[in-house]
Amino acid sequence: MTLIGAEMTELAPGYCAISIQPRPEIQQQHGYVHAGIVATLVDSAGGFAGFTLFPADSSVLTVEYKLNLLAPATGDRLVAEGFVVKAGRTLVITRGEVHAEEGGKRTLVALMQQTLMVMHGKPDP
Amino acid sequence: MTLIGAEMTELAPGYCAISIQPRPEIQQQHGYVHAGIVATLVDSAGGFAGFTLFPADSSVLTVEYKLNLLAPATGDRLVAEGFVVKAGRTLVITRGEVHAEEGGKRTLVALMQQTLMVMHGKPDP
Amino acid sequence: MTLIGAEMTELAPGYCAISIQPRPEIQQQHGYVHAGIVATLVDSAGGFAGFTLFPADSSVLTVEYKLNLLAPATGDRLVAEGFVVKAGRTLVITRGEVHAEEGGKRTLVALMQQTLMVMHGKPDP
Amino acid sequence: MTLIGAEMTELAPGYCAISIQPRPEIQQQHGYVHAGIVATLVDSAGGFAGFTLFPADSSVLTVEYKLNLLAPATGDRLVAEGFVVKAGRTLVITRGEVHAEEGGKRTLVALMQQTLMVMHGKPDP
Repeated sequence: MTLIGAEMTELAPGYCAISIQPRPEIQQQHGYVHAGIVATLVDSAGGFAGFTLFPADSSVLTVEYKLNLLAPATGDRLVAEGFVVKAGRTLVITRGEVHAEEGGKRTLVALMQQTLMVMHGKPDP
Repeated sequence: MTLIGAEMTELAPGYCAISIQPRPEIQQQHGYVHAGIVATLVDSAGGFAGFTLFPADSSVLTVEYKLNLLAPATGDRLVAEGFVVKAGRTLVITRGEVHAEEGGKRTLVALMQQTLMVMHGKPDP
Repeated sequence: MTLIGAEMTELAPGYCAISIQPRPEIQQQHGYVHAGIVATLVDSAGGFAGFTLFPADSSVLTVEYKLNLLAPATGDRLVAEGFVVKAGRTLVITRGEVHAEEGGKRTLVALMQQTLMVMHGKPDP
Repeated sequence: MTLIGAEMTELAPGYCAISIQPRPEIQQQHGYVHAGIVATLVDSAGGFAGFTLFPADSSVLTVEYKLNLLAPATGDRLVAEGFVVKAGRTLVITRGEVHAEEGGKRTLVALMQQTLMVMHGKPDP
């Protein structure tokens, strides 16, 4: 996250938003933010959203996610959001969205569905 | 790819391998390569594998992928491979694997299934 | 759909709901509706939701979907819903949900993310 | 499985094959086997493949799967295969394939990637 210049802009129970401003190092040949960055942002947003509902002595692991890329990731700002859909004892399911913002307009650029695992008794260092 | 220090180590019809050496900037708090990097590598390997079978005047777009993270991405080298499973006129389906190599041992760290779209008449600049 | 006894209960632009009443033939050993039926319902709901936005002379093809099974599919009625997230010229992306209803209570039992393809000039017979 | 007329034709550690002969009740309007049946077969094949590696007192739960539909499911016989890719203590990851067979020719009609959960101490009744 430090490498790519992202910032967590909101964190609430079952929700997380992470934002980034497109800049040359994270853009590919057409000037769009690379799909790998989009994936990183939304995977992280989903993971933190899930983590807000975990017990104190646990950590989070992404088991898997599925990502649809819907539109070029361009604009003034990208916002990735994670939403917890179901919080089980062992597995937590989230949905994620990434919007590109430009001059007050929001475009959905990616849609994610994710499975997280609660690592009980393994807090993050 | 330049930002993260990855290198394409093999390209054949319907196949691509991309490698990277773990180093601090791409590792997360536990010393493992960040899942976003793993995703980027295998998404790219799948995309290039598909692209080898496309017509000359076309480019490639990732429609979607699903990624299972199976083990920590650590070791001396990560190798992401993409394999074309079906090449249609409009859509190309690939599978992907990422292995971590350490002292002659290979561990499967990620498994992907991906849908690419052929952008006819839109060559990369 | 006839085989399994499902019924389309709502169809609007970009939306479809399909319902079914659990009965022995579609239940597995624990008395829950089989996951294959749940998948069929929500895949179909997504497909019809997309189809409502297609041109008249086209048909719909499911390219792929990803389905999380969240809770046992039991109760008086199952309702599968499909929602169009993005309607492109060639590809349409939908989300799907399946709820189990019992005595006024609704439980989310499955969550789907799906890619459809518009088959232009190939109307259904 | 009884409802749809499928038969388990092979079961080995980490592997399962399930076959079915297309017939009117499981075909849709174009004469192809319905995608829901294809999904059911390959989800089940993956589940049984995983189950072969589980402890005796456990049962299997499909957490999620992702399915690409690649070609019409037609022919004399459909064969769904599940292969375990990684067997963890709690989660098991499988891949699946469905081939249509007709006159000695095999066509890949579907590709799956699946996450199973081991339900320890909960044997099937």
